[in-house]
Amino acid sequence: MKFLHTADWHIGKKLHGFSLLNEQKEVFEQLLTVAQKEKVDAIVIAGDLYDRSVPPAEAVRLLNEMFYQLNIQHKFPILSISGNHDSATRLETGTPWYQEMNFHLQTTLNKALFEGIKLKDVQFFLLPYFEPVDARIFFEDETLKTHDEAVQRTIEEMKKNFDPSFKQVLVSHFFVAGSQRTDSETEVTVGGLDNVSSHHFKDFHYVALGHLHHPNASKHLLIQYSGSLLKYSTSEAKQDKGFRLIDIAKDGAVQNQFVSVHPSKDLLVLENDFSTLLDPQYYQTIKKDQYIFARLTDTRMIPNAMDRLREVYPNIIGMERLNRAGLMNHIQQLKHKDQQLLAPDKLFAVFYEGVTGKTLSQKQEEIVTETMESIQKEEE
Amino acid sequence: MKFLHTADWHIGKKLHGFSLLNEQKEVFEQLLTVAQKEKVDAIVIAGDLYDRSVPPAEAVRLLNEMFYQLNIQHKFPILSISGNHDSATRLETGTPWYQEMNFHLQTTLNKALFEGIKLKDVQFFLLPYFEPVDARIFFEDETLKTHDEAVQRTIEEMKKNFDPSFKQVLVSHFFVAGSQRTDSETEVTVGGLDNVSSHHFKDFHYVALGHLHHPNASKHLLIQYSGSLLKYSTSEAKQDKGFRLIDIAKDGAVQNQFVSVHPSKDLLVLENDFSTLLDPQYYQTIKKDQYIFARLTDTRMIPNAMDRLREVYPNIIGMERLNRAGLMNHIQQLKHKDQQLLAPDKLFAVFYEGVTGKTLSQKQEEIVTETMESIQKEEE
Repeated sequence: MKFLHTADWHIGKKLHGFSLLNEQKEVFEQLLTVAQKEKVDAIVIAGDLYDRSVPPAEAVRLLNEMFYQLNIQHKFPILSISGNHDSATRLETGTPWYQEMNFHLQTTLNKALFEGIKLKDVQFFLLPYFEPVDARIFFEDETLKTHDEAVQRTIEEMKKNFDPSFKQVLVSHFFVAGSQRTDSETEVTVGGLDNVSSHHFKDFHYVALGHLHHPNASKHLLIQYSGSLLKYSTSEAKQDKGFRLIDIAKDGAVQNQFVSVHPSKDLLVLENDFSTLLDPQYYQTIKKDQYIFARLTDTRMIPNAMDRLREVYPNIIGMERLNRAGLMNHIQQLKHKDQQLLAPDKLFAVFYEGVTGKTLSQKQEEIVTETMESIQKEEE
Repeated sequence: MKFLHTADWHIGKKLHGFSLLNEQKEVFEQLLTVAQKEKVDAIVIAGDLYDRSVPPAEAVRLLNEMFYQLNIQHKFPILSISGNHDSATRLETGTPWYQEMNFHLQTTLNKALFEGIKLKDVQFFLLPYFEPVDARIFFEDETLKTHDEAVQRTIEEMKKNFDPSFKQVLVSHFFVAGSQRTDSETEVTVGGLDNVSSHHFKDFHYVALGHLHHPNASKHLLIQYSGSLLKYSTSEAKQDKGFRLIDIAKDGAVQNQFVSVHPSKDLLVLENDFSTLLDPQYYQTIKKDQYIFARLTDTRMIPNAMDRLREVYPNIIGMERLNRAGLMNHIQQLKHKDQQLLAPDKLFAVFYEGVTGKTLSQKQEEIVTETMESIQKEEE
């Protein structure tokens, strides 16, 4: 049994205001090509299909189209769950009809979930993201306070239905204790209360997880995150993005191959001083139309920095001043340069010098003084 | 061929802030019971399934459940379209899978639409609500400016595929010229530009429409609105609500039977004076927990009228003063009763008399005067 393990599509997510729908489509197409070439027996998608509980209409259109291509056009069985970013209720639409086509999308705790879905020689258990309160209601058990307790309980129920003539695979969307977070995954409870112990998963042949965006977030060989298909935060800029091909042999041995995907516009973090970034010698080595995030090392003030960077890097998504302490120090120096700084026209002169690198001309000084005087008059 | 014709479910709609989900469920169950008893061959739902393009989650849950019951549980074929209140994109989710179960939900103009869907001896054409601009894009024809022109064009295309060995039924969601509006249907263009001529429909055996909420909104025997299943506005309070059973005989003759539905809490408009509405002799004849809208005939001021009415009618949704001219006249009279009205304490005394019917006591007058004085002091 060979299946493709992916997760965290976050369809509709924007990167600093930039729509990623095109990139999401591109990497999906790469995934689809591999699925066809490798003739996988199923596609596993471990939650966070959408980025928000109420996704924009164009995101709905794209995900509908992806499911259509995978399941109806190319006849791949799909095994999927909702993540903490999805609305279980909204994502549930259509699921009873999907089943007829071997498209299984589990969004809530219910009895059917504990029976598993048998495909070839594997029994898949689809455990969507849920809150401890959902488990308390479902099991009528007030003692289930944490995600760890709730997940443990659901797995106990699953084990009752383990068919020994099948291999067992769990598809889920939780934070497994000890894994590596990046800053684009929402921590659902404060202080690590959403941690689920990997110990509960030991009886599965493989656990296909979603939630964490780093493909190597988990330390456990048989409990793996696929990672997201795109970089959804500058903190993910250096991560490899893609999906896993999982092959479970008859003897239960698991082969795990990570396949990278590459959108035509990638996310690139450039760390340098402002002049270098605008130097043709430098930027001609870079694919300039990528999503660029600039980390400026300068300590001086730079007026209109974003606009000037955008002239070279049309898809710049943001910038940050790395040497904030240095910059603040520079501003402090300007402030104390002159004892007369408290006079507004003098203060303005220093400010002007700081941001333009030029001093005020005689004429300019007169205009500033006149303006300040007329403002003060109006205040009186 | 016998089918059930319904429309304008508006799942999730609120009536003056009151959720109607329970009532929507009740009347749906009545519809389902009749569908089973009459063994209809299909359920036709002519648009406005939801009330809004982004319906609340509980509305999504209810409509999903209704479709599940109709199509999966009871195996009724469904022929449905989106209306002007629905988001075509959102409602489209799941539709390619629905088709496998004879659940046809058409939300956009596309080629398949013009071929029709053959069920028994009827060819159904599902024409969702669309804007003239959609038709201009789809047909690549800039001359299609109005709904009338756009609908005419779509019907011309359908006619090319009319199979003479079948009867033709159109399911659509437009305003047919000359029909009777109520105030709860959105007029989509100003000045009647959304009018579609009934003339275009003459070659169909029956036209099952949605959009207008009055079941007898259309003057044409074979072009009918089913009306909504509930009263969605006080202007609909006296309308009969339900759906149609349509039976098309082999010779093309159409039988049309309207079946009423009745939620346990109906909408009732009470037009009377305030004292009568609060008189047990009067209200013991009324089912008081219905959705009540009060039309007060009084001309005097009535303080806390809604709160006092709610003590008797717990689900009162609103009230209106019918005799507004009389009420204003009454207030004017109060204003001119005394030349000293401009003194705040005197004005208050007249106001108090107007709303309570009592004069201020000596003690009360003193309190008012003291209060007014201390307010004036604070202002100084």
